[in-house]
Amino acid sequence: MSLIVQKFGGSSVANAERVFNVAGIVTRTYDKGNDVVVVVSAQGDTTDDLIAKGNEINPNASKRERDMLVAAGEQVSIALLAMAIEKLGYPVVSLLGWQAGFQTSSAHTAARIRRVVPSRIRKELDKKRIVIVAGFQGLSRYDDITTLGRGGSDTSAVAIAAAMHADLCQIYTDVEGVYTADPRIVKNAKKLESISYDEMLELATMGAQVLNNRSVEMAKKYNIELEVLSSLVDAPGTIVKEKSKMEKMLISGVAKDTDVARVSVIGIPDEPGFAFKLFSKLSAKNINVDIILQSIGRDGTKDISFTCAADRLDDVNAALKDYIENIGAKEILSSTDVAKISIVGAGMESHAGVATKMFEALYDAQINIRMIATSEIKVSVLINKKDADRAVSAIHDKFFEQ
Amino acid sequence: MSLIVQKFGGSSVANAERVFNVAGIVTRTYDKGNDVVVVVSAQGDTTDDLIAKGNEINPNASKRERDMLVAAGEQVSIALLAMAIEKLGYPVVSLLGWQAGFQTSSAHTAARIRRVVPSRIRKELDKKRIVIVAGFQGLSRYDDITTLGRGGSDTSAVAIAAAMHADLCQIYTDVEGVYTADPRIVKNAKKLESISYDEMLELATMGAQVLNNRSVEMAKKYNIELEVLSSLVDAPGTIVKEKSKMEKMLISGVAKDTDVARVSVIGIPDEPGFAFKLFSKLSAKNINVDIILQSIGRDGTKDISFTCAADRLDDVNAALKDYIENIGAKEILSSTDVAKISIVGAGMESHAGVATKMFEALYDAQINIRMIATSEIKVSVLINKKDADRAVSAIHDKFFEQ
Repeated sequence: MSLIVQKFGGSSVANAERVFNVAGIVTRTYDKGNDVVVVVSAQGDTTDDLIAKGNEINPNASKRERDMLVAAGEQVSIALLAMAIEKLGYPVVSLLGWQAGFQTSSAHTAARIRRVVPSRIRKELDKKRIVIVAGFQGLSRYDDITTLGRGGSDTSAVAIAAAMHADLCQIYTDVEGVYTADPRIVKNAKKLESISYDEMLELATMGAQVLNNRSVEMAKKYNIELEVLSSLVDAPGTIVKEKSKMEKMLISGVAKDTDVARVSVIGIPDEPGFAFKLFSKLSAKNINVDIILQSIGRDGTKDISFTCAADRLDDVNAALKDYIENIGAKEILSSTDVAKISIVGAGMESHAGVATKMFEALYDAQINIRMIATSEIKVSVLINKKDADRAVSAIHDKFFEQ
Repeated sequence: MSLIVQKFGGSSVANAERVFNVAGIVTRTYDKGNDVVVVVSAQGDTTDDLIAKGNEINPNASKRERDMLVAAGEQVSIALLAMAIEKLGYPVVSLLGWQAGFQTSSAHTAARIRRVVPSRIRKELDKKRIVIVAGFQGLSRYDDITTLGRGGSDTSAVAIAAAMHADLCQIYTDVEGVYTADPRIVKNAKKLESISYDEMLELATMGAQVLNNRSVEMAKKYNIELEVLSSLVDAPGTIVKEKSKMEKMLISGVAKDTDVARVSVIGIPDEPGFAFKLFSKLSAKNINVDIILQSIGRDGTKDISFTCAADRLDDVNAALKDYIENIGAKEILSSTDVAKISIVGAGMESHAGVATKMFEALYDAQINIRMIATSEIKVSVLINKKDADRAVSAIHDKFFEQ
């Protein structure tokens, strides 16, 4: 008998039919003699609807009250799933985040899980019940409802799996697994049998949002085997674990991120400390930057370029306004008409020429590269947005079809 | 400085405009230097919508999961009200039933409040915050979410008022107070300045559903002064307390209940024990009966007639089917084409002729009486439904306009 944690996202429980589909998956797992803990997100657009309702009243409401508001979403979905499982004739109980033992920081709307104390879950499993847990939510030390931020239900599932030493943590989504490229763009994209935590992390940060990043980090830390699979197609998914079987493969995937902006600060004095000051302005506003390039100094000034999420561009401009004025830099140029294309693979560490092969594919397709960044297991390039899909196909074919 | 508990029903917070209206009332009370605890129901039709959603999936779901489902409704409304109060610039915090210290029985969907431990509420009041509490819900000893059943938010408000020795408990509704008759029927109906707990209880059981009955019983037990008033009209309401100022008045109101059915069981053997068996069948099904009449025995048989809620008539017929067959009673006659008209008043205890005056009013209006029941402070008659409004007007004029 194994302990299996299964996580279902909002679209998997969007309506009554989908809820019964999930109930079917869960009860079949239970029928095989497993202990089953199920983590569920709020139905479909519920969270967005609740946020809109709150914004109608007060767009500047405290984060504490926003958490109180949106946490109602999972409460509805866990009850409905439990009711569906009851209908199928199985013993079941639904638990809110705090009932399931989720203790978090008090950073409302983006709380960190401090600890999961799964005593109630264990008690219910001992009674042979299927346990349904509200994802995305927990309780602060002040006994206030907190939420983990977007994608937090993945993290909830992995945290339970870690706290209870689960044998497997299955993340059900609307795709069948992790692919070598987005199957909607690249017809020949292949489903990976397995992928390592590190590769998955690089893919996630690069726009292939199959799994929430924090959940993969946590799975890596506690060595929890994850499986990414579809709630609508009955087929094995992709296993995420320490060592990928595919290691001999040069790269494990091509990812595209079009939610990206390029910012260039022109004419910064070429003296120590100015880059630090620039990026400390940004981090003070919680703006994450990705690729950073600095030009070689010339005429006593230099240029610094970086990329950030497209929807933070206004914040970047606001944060850098007085930097420009006080430092005496010349101007800020920015564009959201760009896309970031990345290749990921633990294999490239030990293989020279991977980046070259990527650049060759882009050259063959006559696609211009604006910026380049590399890490041990990835290579990212910034190109014009209009070329993005063509670039993904060209690179994918170069690595997987030759 | 006083401690005031204010309760707002679902229609008072049905949309953003209404929520801000309530926020205005609350903050004006706070501005007068009072400590304010606010109890809120779910918005508008939220509870019904959630129940429908649950029924779509499983109409026979466990009560425990049904409570989990509907309790999400108040969670949304307390957060929205808190956000509105924040928008007005006041310190505020919203609390779920369990956070506010509501400990209940584990009779899901109809739980009884065992205790309110208001330590968190007190701590928040000490910080000069307005405290918003989710009505209708609590926590069982098993740490499961419970609900108090329909109208439970009134009871929540009174329970907090009792636990915290509040100076006043204001119940805001969509009427301006308690009237001598339904103002929609009787143009001359007068708003009462005050009414006693007992009178209010009799009015409530008789279809004048201004206040939930359990809340009045609890207010009486702990001697909590209630005020019934409108959230839309800024005017004093009706005070409910131990002794009404209006005691010299003969009656305090005329009430109509058309949600009533009359049932007659014909030809019951005129021997001991048959009435007991009949009503035990009904109470086993949780069917409340009101007026009971038994005919004088004749030819060795007797007839028993009673009234019940109209929507329980099918249950009554089902419950009595085998009673009829096994006991050998002749038949069951029933009708929902009836209305119950009642007059209530502590004054009638010490005044003879009150019932006579009521009957005279009905006779003047040529309205036929089908059944009569009396208690120390009320007289009820059953008449044809079509005569109901005419009867209320006639009786009201007789007592209040002469």
